[in-house]
This record gives sequence, structure tokens and C-alpha cells, in this order.
Amino acid sequence: MKRIEGGICAVRGVRAGGIKQGKNGLAIMVADTPGPASAGVFTRNRVIAAPLIITRQALKKNELKAVIANSGCANAFTGERGILDAQWMAGILAERLGCKPEEIGVASTGVIGRYLDKAVVAGQLDEVFSRLSDTEEAGRACAHAIMTTDTAMKEVAVELDNGVRVAGIAKGSGMIEPKMGTMLAFLYTDAKIPKKILDICLRRAVDKSFNMVVVDGDTSTNDMALLTATGYRDCGEEEFQEGLDSVCISLARMIAKDGEGATRLIEARVKGALTENDARLAAKAIVRSPLVKTAIYGKDPNWGRVVAAAGYSGAEVDQDRISLKFSNDNEEVTLVDSGRIVEGKLEALKGIMAGGEIVIEVDIGLGDHEATAWGCDLTYDYVKINAMYTT
Amino acid sequence: MKRIEGGICAVRGVRAGGIKQGKNGLAIMVADTPGPASAGVFTRNRVIAAPLIITRQALKKNELKAVIANSGCANAFTGERGILDAQWMAGILAERLGCKPEEIGVASTGVIGRYLDKAVVAGQLDEVFSRLSDTEEAGRACAHAIMTTDTAMKEVAVELDNGVRVAGIAKGSGMIEPKMGTMLAFLYTDAKIPKKILDICLRRAVDKSFNMVVVDGDTSTNDMALLTATGYRDCGEEEFQEGLDSVCISLARMIAKDGEGATRLIEARVKGALTENDARLAAKAIVRSPLVKTAIYGKDPNWGRVVAAAGYSGAEVDQDRISLKFSNDNEEVTLVDSGRIVEGKLEALKGIMAGGEIVIEVDIGLGDHEATAWGCDLTYDYVKINAMYTT
Repeated sequence: MKRIEGGICAVRGVRAGGIKQGKNGLAIMVADTPGPASAGVFTRNRVIAAPLIITRQALKKNELKAVIANSGCANAFTGERGILDAQWMAGILAERLGCKPEEIGVASTGVIGRYLDKAVVAGQLDEVFSRLSDTEEAGRACAHAIMTTDTAMKEVAVELDNGVRVAGIAKGSGMIEPKMGTMLAFLYTDAKIPKKILDICLRRAVDKSFNMVVVDGDTSTNDMALLTATGYRDCGEEEFQEGLDSVCISLARMIAKDGEGATRLIEARVKGALTENDARLAAKAIVRSPLVKTAIYGKDPNWGRVVAAAGYSGAEVDQDRISLKFSNDNEEVTLVDSGRIVEGKLEALKGIMAGGEIVIEVDIGLGDHEATAWGCDLTYDYVKINAMYTT
Repeated sequence: MKRIEGGICAVRGVRAGGIKQGKNGLAIMVADTPGPASAGVFTRNRVIAAPLIITRQALKKNELKAVIANSGCANAFTGERGILDAQWMAGILAERLGCKPEEIGVASTGVIGRYLDKAVVAGQLDEVFSRLSDTEEAGRACAHAIMTTDTAMKEVAVELDNGVRVAGIAKGSGMIEPKMGTMLAFLYTDAKIPKKILDICLRRAVDKSFNMVVVDGDTSTNDMALLTATGYRDCGEEEFQEGLDSVCISLARMIAKDGEGATRLIEARVKGALTENDARLAAKAIVRSPLVKTAIYGKDPNWGRVVAAAGYSGAEVDQDRISLKFSNDNEEVTLVDSGRIVEGKLEALKGIMAGGEIVIEVDIGLGDHEATAWGCDLTYDYVKINAMYTT
């Protein structure tokens, strides 16, 4: 497997395009193939946005020929009118493509509790549709169009050893603690994979990637990951899963690194847990903890907050068996060894915290299960961005 | 029931004292009575501090004649040495009082993963012990000594209609999402209440008060609430419970209002829930949400974040039945009425958000259970305080 250029348009059969005007953006992705196969996962928030309701429904009976996604308005908590608006979005794209509205996936991101501005969407659709193409630039315009508070575009593509390609774009920066869903992620492959397997592979990949990212612990109403296979190449399930995992984990790390106001990526690796769920709980608690996040922002060597987070995470923990290390690309420091404090390491810890990517490794010392989660530091800018989001 | 002056020393039989020198403080409370009765609740964090381990043990067989509490070092994650240090604290006070070390409650708050500075504690003990008294000032010195990042002292006293008094002090500003425990709270009453009933009453009161406060969602390793009855007055259980609830809720509100960096108190009242647990989950999710907290700090009328938090809280929610109001002492504004957005209210909402105490009322519309939780806004100063805590 190797990383390749080209984003989602590196996948055979994918055309894309996008536009961003101020806070409003529109992205379109089309799968040019006689037989696409699609799968999706959606937020577990009980307040679920209108576009997710209709896309989830569409996926039950149909494959997605195309996806339309707007940024600026989440079309969430908008009742019956929101449903009609989301159906309208599917309808106007279906009309252009000459397919059924039930073959269009719809996604939205932005402010909750506001109605969609249909005039803006309609105007942008004309422009984006006329420019749809399979070039790298078109894929990038598409990835750019779904950004909100994101500061970096998130796209990745890989080519497996058998020539199959898997690629995806994502957006996500705040209101991030996906639960069985994700922020917006649109994934494409030219592999030929039956819908049922595609669905299983997507769930597995999402569990290891987007579901292990926390920016602020707020689960969005609009999280969605869609995966479409254009089916131009044969591919074994295992190899495909590996490629998909790699793409999803890369996008998940990009989301964490671009967390609102973030200056550092935090990777929490928990091992030695009694169960996989325990490992996941502990890893996510560490990257969710505002106290761990602020300490890393301030290079404050307050490592006790990490063990406190593991302790309240719900995971089985015995404080006399915990070991704790911090590292970055260059150095590693052990703070706790099987429950015993290793003294005189605080200055070294400060140095590690100054790096751009910080790895926190907790060995619970009780079993052999492990999990990794990603997050970011909590900074003045997170507060600034979110204190003035709608205004 | 009426509020009275005097803090914990308003309760007959209570002597107190305290000292604070830089980051290090020491507080002592003594129950002068032949027959005290005591109860305690403790953090549910699996990483539990040494003083809590020995105090929990002491309470199983003994009543507490006195409590000693230090600030500056949490004596948490300190292994066997931490246990010995906590026992030493109990021992030096027991010696002065001529009682058993098992009759002393020990509490600590401060940095996790550092050993106790016994020389500092011993020196402060001499001074505090010589000044122990039952005056209002002594109670205040005691409340002051347990503060860390707190900016306000937290004490409250009430007198019931039957003359019984209930009073308490508390500390707590960050690492606050008590689970079945609380930040440090020391409660006293002159009521004569059997230990068993005292324990039940304390658990009930804590569930309605400290367990409904969130500052940052981090559950401390050192949360503890201790209640001691000096037994000088007869009192019915129901009347006592009412007084205890009132004292605990007042202290809980003070903790929320004095959350690290906070400029506003947020009260989330959830009603119409299917179960009490659902109401509690939804109310706590709202005051825990960094996005709700930053919006209120910035007076950003982004109320959609409140319904999103209720949606992911785990509570049963039907988005078509939710109603949402914001209010303060002067005004009230309805944003959502049974799932329908009430438009044109954003300016009014901004005005309400500018107040010092903001009430968010969510009616889930599914049942008749309710709960109230308290929190505070998330500000630049929270980040500042916690990015430089140990340095």
C-alpha cells in the first residue's frame, strides 16, 4: 500500500466539484459507474439532522450515484421543513444527473436550528455542476467546500498493492466526539465490493478512526461517513479493509490536529487493558479531558491529570499497576512505572510537550487489549472560535 | 428554614481554624461532643487518593471527632507512601486531641502525583491548632484554607424551624464533575441523627447538589463530602433532609459559579423526561458541553448546541417534542416550542446571555421527571489557569 496524490478523484469513476462563498459552501461528488455500491454510518445523537434522515433511508434501498453537501447551515432541528429542504437538495441534483432523488446522498454542516437558504444552494449548484471534473483540483475544491471552522483541507488517497485505490475527504474541527458516526467524511474506492461487505468494512474502519477522535466531547447532530465503491477492480476483503482503515485513520488524525484552536495533536495509546472497550474508554477519556488538553497547551508537566482521566473513564484500573510515558518523535520520558512515580522527569516532560505531536502511552497492566485515540490541546482560540460562531 | 451567618461554627459543638500560605493551606474542624455521628461520600474515580482510602475505612467503624484537610498537594497516586502520609496527618491531630487516629477524617486537594510535604503540614498544624475556635472568623479561616484555584470562599448555614442548624463549607473550582462524591465539602449539624440515617440523608443531598455540578467534566481523585452531627438537638428526618439539601445545593451553586475562569453561572433545568436518570443525563450534558459554555461566554445565541447536547446525552429524546427557554432574573425567551423553532428571538437571547446567572429550561415533553444541574461558562481564563497550574 502506498500514499498517492489526487484525493478522491484518484479513484476511477469519481468526478467532484465545490465552491465556498463566505460561510456557505457546496460540494458535489458523482460516481460514474453503472453499478456503484454504497454504505454509510450516521451520528448516534438523538437529535439527528434532516439530511441524515433521508440519506439513511436512501441507503436502505438504493446505491448512491452522487452526494451533495452544503456547509454554513446544518439543517438540523428544522422539523418537517428541514426534511423537505433536504429532499429538495437531492431532487435538484438528481434532475441534473437524470437519476432518482433516492440515489443522492445529502449532507450538511453549520449552525443548528436555522433553515436552509435554498436560493444560495440553488445558485451554487449551477456553478459547481458546470465545473464537475475528475481532476485533482476539482477534488480539492470539493474538500474545501465542506470546511467550516477547519483551517486545513482534509483529503487522502492510497493505492493498494493490487492497484485498488481508496480515497476520502473529511471535514471536522469542533463539536467533535463522533459516536458510531463521524464528522462528514466521503470515501471512494474503485474496488468491486458487495454492499454488505462494504457496510461491514466501513463500520470497522470508523470504529478505529473517526470514533476515536475527540475535539471537545460534543457529538454533532450531522456526523456522517459515506463510502461508495465504483467497482472497476476486484479486491479481497482483508486487503480492502487495510486500505480503508489507513485512509480513515489518516483523516481522523487530520481532524484531531485541526481541532478548533489546536496547536498540538495528542495521541493516547492505551495498552494492557482488560477488554478492548476498557482500552477505548481510557484512551478517549484522556484526549477528552480539558485538564490534560490545557496542560499540554501550556507545557505544564501535570501528568497526574492523565492517570486521573484513566481512573474516571469507566475502565478497570488498578493504580498500583499503571505505567505512563510521554513521547514525541525525538524523545521519550517515563513518569510512572507500575504505579511508582519516577521522580525528576518534569523538565524532560515539558520539553516533550513543546512538540507538535505528543504521544501519551498508558499501560494499565491488567490485560492485553489496546486502543488509540486522537485529540488536540485546548487553547484560547477554541474559546474564541466558539464564543463567536454565529455572529 | 432561614439562612444564618456564622458558617460551620454556627453549629453548636464545632470549632475550626485554618491557614493558607501561598499554595499550601491547612484546615482543621473539631466536633466537641461526647457522641458525634458521621457519614461520608467519596469519589468514584478508580484512582483514589490516599486520604480518602483511610477516611473511608475510618468511617466504617468510628465516628469522626475531627477533620484535617490540606490544600496544595492532593496526595493522590502516591502509593503506599501516600497512605502512610495520610495516616501521619490523622495521627498528629489525634495526638493533640487525645483521640484515636481512626477518629480523624483526612482530606487533600492540589497537584496529583506529588508526595506530601510533611514539614509544611506539621508547621501549619501547630499554628492552626493554637487558634482553633468557634467564632465566625475561625470558620472562615478554615473555609479559606482549603481553597486552591477557587476565587471565592464557599460557606453556608441554615436554621430550621425547629432550631436545628445545618452548615457546610466547600472548595472546588476545576477538575469538577463529581460522581457520587463531590469536591471537598465539610458539613455540620447539631441535630441528633443516627449514623445510618445520616448516611442516607447525605447520599440523597449529594445526588441533588454536588453530583449535579460540572465545571469541566474531569472527575477528581480526591472528591469527598463529610457530614458530622454533634447531636445537641432532636430533629425529624424529613426536616433535616430539607435543611441538608438546601445547604448542599447552595454550596454546589457556589462551586459552579466559581468554576475556573467562569464569568457566569449556568443552571440547566430539564423537565418532561421519561425517567429521573434521563433528566439528570440531559441536564448534566448541557452544562458539560464546551460549545454551550463558550456560546454563553461569548453571548452567541447559538441555542442549537443545547438541543444537540440533550440529543447526545443518552436521555430518551424526540426532537419534535422538545421545548427550550432561556431566562435570567428579568427576562425569559422561548426559542423552541414543541419542536418548532420560534423565530426572531436571537437578539433577546443575546440580552439574557449577558446576565450573571442564566437559566436554560428544556422540556423534553415525554414524561414527568425533572432534574437541575449547574455549570459555568468556558472562558480564556479557564485555559490560562489550567495551562499553568503546576508552574
